[in-house]
Amino acid sequence: MMSKRGRFITLEGGEGVGKSTNVGFVAECLEAEGLEVVRTREPGGTARGEAIRALLLDPVPQEPLHVDAELLLMFAARAQHLAEKILPALARGAWVVCDRFTDATFAYQGGGRGIAKERIAVLEDFVQQGLSPDLTLLLDMPKEAAKQRLESRLRDRQEQRDRFEQEQADFFQAVRDGYLARAEEAPERFAVIDAQHALDEVQTQIRQTLLTRVAAWR
Amino acid sequence: MMSKRGRFITLEGGEGVGKSTNVGFVAECLEAEGLEVVRTREPGGTARGEAIRALLLDPVPQEPLHVDAELLLMFAARAQHLAEKILPALARGAWVVCDRFTDATFAYQGGGRGIAKERIAVLEDFVQQGLSPDLTLLLDMPKEAAKQRLESRLRDRQEQRDRFEQEQADFFQAVRDGYLARAEEAPERFAVIDAQHALDEVQTQIRQTLLTRVAAWR
Repeated sequence: MMSKRGRFITLEGGEGVGKSTNVGFVAECLEAEGLEVVRTREPGGTARGEAIRALLLDPVPQEPLHVDAELLLMFAARAQHLAEKILPALARGAWVVCDRFTDATFAYQGGGRGIAKERIAVLEDFVQQGLSPDLTLLLDMPKEAAKQRLESRLRDRQEQRDRFEQEQADFFQAVRDGYLARAEEAPERFAVIDAQHALDEVQTQIRQTLLTRVAAWR
Repeated sequence: MMSKRGRFITLEGGEGVGKSTNVGFVAECLEAEGLEVVRTREPGGTARGEAIRALLLDPVPQEPLHVDAELLLMFAARAQHLAEKILPALARGAWVVCDRFTDATFAYQGGGRGIAKERIAVLEDFVQQGLSPDLTLLLDMPKEAAKQRLESRLRDRQEQRDRFEQEQADFFQAVRDGYLARAEEAPERFAVIDAQHALDEVQTQIRQTLLTRVAAWR
């Protein structure tokens, strides 16, 4: 049915907003419409990208990762991910659903770590050369609600926190502000989903947004 | 004696030109002048940089590393190396002797892999923000001589070749041309050393170059 280029859909949001749960839901909604879906995530998405992801998430207390190095690693994984997986899938007509993309870099490294947006934009242009998602679902909730969910998940998982999960409340607030600023700059691309409601309500919002876009694009 | 900022000296050259042998010699010459020397290498130079170096050199036949990803990884390791090791050493007055730096990126990824110089310069500006070596010793020899030395070293080592050592003759010629082009663009920074002579002759050239610069800088 779809011989034309597929659509590129990203899910964004801070820790604890339910992103991982809902990325599968988005894929199922699209598959129910008869679309071929490739589900992937950042940082990572390829064997080499996952190796870079491991470097990024590894806490090495004796040698903090410099902010520029972190940013360049993010975009290295992204360049590999685009070339190896995202662009070939879109080219053959598949829809790509990606758990985080460049908006996360603006939110975490820009908002969270205070790297100037202009510096991030240099690397965005370098790697993406004009490409951007067709639709970005931003799962948004107040930081207190997100923090509660994250704490509960970490208790269940009983694992060590990764470098990002170790950050403090101010960092998460800055990440949320970074995301909302990105959404304001590109309102036609972003759909901001209120993620503090019960899961079925959140998923109703997501499904409606998706079906409206799918209908418009067909 | 030296309370002012130290000097940043890089050694460059393709595979088999004797770079690893001579980086120690450069350090010894400077130490004999009473200078504190920090010896390091790229890609790598820090714990995190070495982890990135391992990713770069790892041959993964089923997933070739995309040229942009390779370039971004190189500069990620470099950003970490500068922040963690090179800039602090220079600031306290130590001299830094580094086995390869950004000229290698222009030679290998630019000359060798054909990435446009302008694209590499975007990342050079991003990471270095104006910093460049004070002196670059380019060990140069015709590619046939370099190939013979590399073959002999690989026989001795009896190890698998890394991703760069697996490249073919055309690649090495392009790398050499890339280096010579860089040297032409910055003749005051580069000293081109004819590396096809016997080791003691090469080291005489290196020592003379170093002592002239040290005298001028003091």
